[in-house]
Amino acid sequence: MAISLGELATKFGCELTGDPDILVDSVATLENAGAGALSFLSNSKLKRHLSSTKAAVVVLGLEDAADCPVAALIVDDPYAAYARMAALICPVPAIEPGVHVSAVVHETADIASSAQICAHAYIGERAVIGEHVYVGPGTVIGPDCAVGDSCRFVANVTMPRKVTVGQRGIFHPGSIVGADGFGNATTSEGWVKVPQLGGVRIGNDVEIGSNTTVDCGAIGDTVIEDGVRIDNLCMIAHNVHIGAHTAVAAMCGFSGSSKIGRRCMFAGKSACVGHITICDDVVIGGRGTVSKDITEPGVYAASFNVEPARDWSKKVARFRRIDSLYERVRDLEKDDK
Amino acid sequence: MAISLGELATKFGCELTGDPDILVDSVATLENAGAGALSFLSNSKLKRHLSSTKAAVVVLGLEDAADCPVAALIVDDPYAAYARMAALICPVPAIEPGVHVSAVVHETADIASSAQICAHAYIGERAVIGEHVYVGPGTVIGPDCAVGDSCRFVANVTMPRKVTVGQRGIFHPGSIVGADGFGNATTSEGWVKVPQLGGVRIGNDVEIGSNTTVDCGAIGDTVIEDGVRIDNLCMIAHNVHIGAHTAVAAMCGFSGSSKIGRRCMFAGKSACVGHITICDDVVIGGRGTVSKDITEPGVYAASFNVEPARDWSKKVARFRRIDSLYERVRDLEKDDK
Amino acid sequence: MAISLGELATKFGCELTGDPDILVDSVATLENAGAGALSFLSNSKLKRHLSSTKAAVVVLGLEDAADCPVAALIVDDPYAAYARMAALICPVPAIEPGVHVSAVVHETADIASSAQICAHAYIGERAVIGEHVYVGPGTVIGPDCAVGDSCRFVANVTMPRKVTVGQRGIFHPGSIVGADGFGNATTSEGWVKVPQLGGVRIGNDVEIGSNTTVDCGAIGDTVIEDGVRIDNLCMIAHNVHIGAHTAVAAMCGFSGSSKIGRRCMFAGKSACVGHITICDDVVIGGRGTVSKDITEPGVYAASFNVEPARDWSKKVARFRRIDSLYERVRDLEKDDK
Repeated sequence: MAISLGELATKFGCELTGDPDILVDSVATLENAGAGALSFLSNSKLKRHLSSTKAAVVVLGLEDAADCPVAALIVDDPYAAYARMAALICPVPAIEPGVHVSAVVHETADIASSAQICAHAYIGERAVIGEHVYVGPGTVIGPDCAVGDSCRFVANVTMPRKVTVGQRGIFHPGSIVGADGFGNATTSEGWVKVPQLGGVRIGNDVEIGSNTTVDCGAIGDTVIEDGVRIDNLCMIAHNVHIGAHTAVAAMCGFSGSSKIGRRCMFAGKSACVGHITICDDVVIGGRGTVSKDITEPGVYAASFNVEPARDWSKKVARFRRIDSLYERVRDLEKDDK
Repeated sequence: MAISLGELATKFGCELTGDPDILVDSVATLENAGAGALSFLSNSKLKRHLSSTKAAVVVLGLEDAADCPVAALIVDDPYAAYARMAALICPVPAIEPGVHVSAVVHETADIASSAQICAHAYIGERAVIGEHVYVGPGTVIGPDCAVGDSCRFVANVTMPRKVTVGQRGIFHPGSIVGADGFGNATTSEGWVKVPQLGGVRIGNDVEIGSNTTVDCGAIGDTVIEDGVRIDNLCMIAHNVHIGAHTAVAAMCGFSGSSKIGRRCMFAGKSACVGHITICDDVVIGGRGTVSKDITEPGVYAASFNVEPARDWSKKVARFRRIDSLYERVRDLEKDDK
Repeated sequence: MAISLGELATKFGCELTGDPDILVDSVATLENAGAGALSFLSNSKLKRHLSSTKAAVVVLGLEDAADCPVAALIVDDPYAAYARMAALICPVPAIEPGVHVSAVVHETADIASSAQICAHAYIGERAVIGEHVYVGPGTVIGPDCAVGDSCRFVANVTMPRKVTVGQRGIFHPGSIVGADGFGNATTSEGWVKVPQLGGVRIGNDVEIGSNTTVDCGAIGDTVIEDGVRIDNLCMIAHNVHIGAHTAVAAMCGFSGSSKIGRRCMFAGKSACVGHITICDDVVIGGRGTVSKDITEPGVYAASFNVEPARDWSKKVARFRRIDSLYERVRDLEKDDK
């Protein structure tokens, strides 16, 4: 969609240097931008590309404005402003309301007339689908699910049963929300399955990544509060509770009944064990394992970076004998007295 | 389903204190239970909720019976007893036999008349589907698969070919059983795919979690024995063999041809490398990597818990110089002589 | 398919010892092979099975030929030769061109007449499907995708939009290629989604494993070059670039904008952080984390193997006090002067 720089400046509260009538209809990086493209600068490492950019306009902070060779939209937070402008210039395709002839909708389901149900989707018993919801091809929304307005299920998403979702949720392909948690009681004859009877409650503005799984609660519900963002291939176990605006990068796993605070950030492949509590505003480094409560905001970590395998093996061999090193130091201390 | 306490006591061999005619028709935690709800106490940490529970009845051990303010079903293993009672009170919805009009079934497939094939399911050449099997929406069961009685494919499950499943298996959404293993031969022109020609053989009472993948064997079969439970997002590579009643928590990975014993337990994100053998009754801690045979039952581990990132960085820096520390101690020992 | 040893020898440039008219129509391990089966020996650990094999013929290196009790196909690289012969003897089922009546194809899509579109597949706006492509059941190929000749989408694969694939690609079930990357701008009111507008470009002869996710680029494209092999449950984030003939084992994760060289190998559960560069010919050990550029080819590692949990706990306790150990050694050194 083409929009003028003047209109962007007004709409997003930016200061504009340059011709307000210039139109932009695409976005691009500083390096690759051509005529008609809006670009942005929010990472100072990329500033080297600014002087040679061919963008129609660059969204940037005041500190970089003087160095911009083209029109500039000056704003305090250029990355967030770019995100909002890009959503306006390159919108998600509009919904085409209606139920595709190949979709199957249970007679007890209730689907808003402005919703789009795509090819091969399935909507189950008593499911409720709100206004402007997009249910992509192959998506299964099972019994007793309730989906708020303007949610988007991209394709091949599965919600087997009893999931409640607020407004504007985005569910990427292959995400599974509300399948059984891993509940097994041990007996002398082997495992007995513990019925997983709870549901999942998801707030507004939540995004769930591709092939991520969010299990239903064992008895009560698994809860994901407003504004939570979860990347691909994450595992949210039964009865986990994730506080508002927490962000979870790819391949993280939260074990059963863990309680995660608000505005936390989990880097890729991090994890927490079951039945623990993490307070608000905690950041966990990549591949970090949280196995005890965290009660203080801050940055936590525990991982090693790779090094040449021979060097690493030597260190591990040393580590394996660390006990004896302590003994040797103790002996030296004794002698030293 | 409503059932009386007297009936539960008889059916599950419990001692009942309280009115045998009380009916229960739901389950709940001690904290949240109301009239008509059965609850249980198996974790002593939760005993604080017992005295104030509003449950109709609590399933518990003899040691807690005296403290129960309401009716009690007393049994040696309250968690397993609860699991069985919950399955009776809140059963999985009954199957509605028949093939949905939108399902596609190959003419050479053989489907028991008591099975339910849901919307948009696909059943391929020569596939055999047993009695009372539920094939949920969007599920693909490919050529030469044979599914035993009372299996349940929740939704969007994929078995591309040649998978044999025993009775009462449960396959959660997005699970993939029998796709190609990762077999590549190196040549000077790049990788050559090694055809993956084996199948998968799965015993009775196996549960496979959401988005878990179990690859077919390269030549022989990948084997999962009776009673194995696998959680979400696990990876079982080609020609792995998992012994009966082993439980595998989320995000574990078993590399090709690894042989896992019976009654093992793998905590979340643990892994084993290829071509190794783990004996029966081994427990692997969270994020543990098994890279050699394990021949003794027991608990094995290797992971670090997070700590404040600054503290961790300091330790890592120390660790990187551990070699020089050994040298310094050796020098001191020399001088000490 | 039955083929004579003479024909195999000619076709694959092997030296044959034995009757060229013997026919083989299956493959098997040395141990399990029977009449009519071709087997191979490429791993010296398995040589013990050679003397007793009942295979019709064994593909092996010159060094093992004298010990072969049956016919032999002698070749420099027996594993690659076996792979090629197996693909000939046990071919993937032939394509049955045409669009299944239950598939849904957008009127603007362009599908080659030799392609097979299976049950419940969906092909979106402006998608182009090349010659001899197999689009398995439940697969979704969205708007603006272009699929080269002879690609194979096994079943339930999802490509939401704007993915370009070369020839002979194989996409295993549950793989998701081209869904949104994880882009969020932080604001005082929470996260703002950064529109993910790029696509994915995939070269020739690429294989993507089950339930693996490859995100679209944020602005430019995510790129996977020719001959790359990716196993199951991997995560390739937005704007990653993977060089030709690199192999990635299961459960690896590459963060956004990381640039991976050619002919690299990543063992299972390894990972690299965002915005780094790894040169050609690098091997990363299992569960290794790459958090800085790697500029030298070689083998890199950083993981610990499990040990009895009690021993491990002791070591971790020692590690936690490593700082004080350094101090103690320093004190000893002072006294030693």
